[in-house]
Amino acid sequence: MEPQFVPYTDRYVPDASPEAAAQTFYDVMRRRRSVREFSDRPVSRETIEWVVRTATSAPNGANKQPWRFVAVQDPALKREIRLAAEEEEREFYARRASERWLADLAPLGTDEDKGYLEVAPWLIVVFRLVRADDGGQVYYSDESVGIATGFLLAAAHHGGLATLTHTPSPMKFLSQVLGRPDNERAYMLIPVGYPTDDCTVPAHALPRRPLDEVLIFDRP
Amino acid sequence: MEPQFVPYTDRYVPDASPEAAAQTFYDVMRRRRSVREFSDRPVSRETIEWVVRTATSAPNGANKQPWRFVAVQDPALKREIRLAAEEEEREFYARRASERWLADLAPLGTDEDKGYLEVAPWLIVVFRLVRADDGGQVYYSDESVGIATGFLLAAAHHGGLATLTHTPSPMKFLSQVLGRPDNERAYMLIPVGYPTDDCTVPAHALPRRPLDEVLIFDRP
Ligand SMILES: N[C@@H](Cc1ccc(O)c(I)c1)C(=O)O
Ligand SMILES: N[C@@H](Cc1ccc(O)c(I)c1)C(=O)O
Repeated sequence: MEPQFVPYTDRYVPDASPEAAAQTFYDVMRRRRSVREFSDRPVSRETIEWVVRTATSAPNGANKQPWRFVAVQDPALKREIRLAAEEEEREFYARRASERWLADLAPLGTDEDKGYLEVAPWLIVVFRLVRADDGGQVYYSDESVGIATGFLLAAAHHGGLATLTHTPSPMKFLSQVLGRPDNERAYMLIPVGYPTDDCTVPAHALPRRPLDEVLIFDRP
Repeated sequence: MEPQFVPYTDRYVPDASPEAAAQTFYDVMRRRRSVREFSDRPVSRETIEWVVRTATSAPNGANKQPWRFVAVQDPALKREIRLAAEEEEREFYARRASERWLADLAPLGTDEDKGYLEVAPWLIVVFRLVRADDGGQVYYSDESVGIATGFLLAAAHHGGLATLTHTPSPMKFLSQVLGRPDNERAYMLIPVGYPTDDCTVPAHALPRRPLDEVLIFDRP
C-alpha cells in the first residue's frame, strides 16, 4: 500500500499565547480528583458518546485502534459488576495484597466496599485489544490504550463529570460479566458521574511532587 | 497511617451543558494529528512546564507518581538522540520488523530518517518508574504513565502545539544518552513544536472506526 498524504490544515490555534493557553488547560485539569462518592444524578448517553469519541482520537500504533469501550447503565448489570468486584477486592484486602501494599493504601482509606459501582450513573469499562478483531496484529496497545484513557478522563472532566480509575484486581470477571471475546482484556473500570454534594477525597492523594523533581531539563 | 479526607469543593463546572462542554472538548481534540514535519519555531520553557504539570496531575497508583520527564532543548543532545534513534530504526526497518509489521506501517510512509528529532524545539522523554526513587514499590505504573502521557498530549494540543508519540524501538539508548538511573524506563519520545506551514499527515491515520464498533452499551 502506497502512503498517501493530505495537508494538515485543520489546526487548532488557541486564542491566547501558548503559555496562557497551556496554563488555562492546566487550571481546569488540576481540579480533577478521583472520586469514590458518587451521586445518582443522571448523565446523558450523548455525553458518554462525546467522551468516548475523544478517547478514540488518541494516537495509537499503526492506527489499529486497539480498544473497546463498554458503557454500562443497566442497574442489574451494575449490580453484577459490583458484586463480582467486591468478591475480588475482599480477597485482595484479606490475602493478595502485601503488607507494604496495604500500608501504601492506608492513607487512601479504601476497602472492599464498592457501593459506588451501583450509584454512579455510568460505568465505562475500557478493554485493550491484544489482537485485532480479525486476528491481525496490534502494536503498542498498552501505550495506545493508556493514552486513550487519559483522553477519556480529560474529556469527562471538561464535561463537568467526575471519574474514578478503578482497577479491581484481577479484572477478568469483567470479560465474563460483559460477555467480551478473548482478544479483549479489561484495562480499567471507570465510574462516571457527579460527586455527592458533601463528597470528600483523601488528603494524601492531593500533593504532587514539586515540578523540579519530576521534570528535568537537558542532561543533569 | 490514618486516612484523612478533605471536602472536594474546588470542582470544575463548565459554563455549558455536559453534552455541549464534552462536544466542545472533542471538537478541539479531534483536530490533533501526529506530526512528523516540525518547524524550528521556538516554544518557551514555561509552556513546556504547564504541559508537564498537567501530565503530573494524572491519577496514579497509590499516588506514587511513577514518572519522570526529561525536556531536551540542547541542540547537541537532540543530535545525539537523533543519531541513536536512527541507528535503532535502521535495524528495525532492515531486520527487526516482521513483514506484517512493515506492511501495516507502509501507509504511514515512515522510515529510519528521524530528522524531526533535531528540528522540533523540544523533545520530551517520558520515563516510567519501575521502582520509586527510594527503592519502594510502585503500582499500576504502566497505566499511570499512559494516562499521564494522554494528559501531556492533550495539554500540548490545547497550547496550540503539535506532538508525535514516537517509539524508536528499543528505547534503552534514551537512558544512556540522558544518564537516567536504573529505576527509570523510557516510555515515549515526544517531539513538541509547531508543524511546518506545508505539513502533511498520512491519510491512513485519519479515519477512526465508527463509534458503534468501539462503544457498546450494556451487554450485547
Ligand atoms: N518506530 C518506528 C516504526 C513505527 C512507526 C509508527 C507506528 O505507528 C509504529 I506501531 C511503528 C518509526 O517511528 O518509524
Ligand atoms: N483495587 C483496590 C486497591 C487499590 C486502590 C487504590 C489504589 O491506588 C491502588 I494501587 C489499589 C481498590 O480499588 O480498593
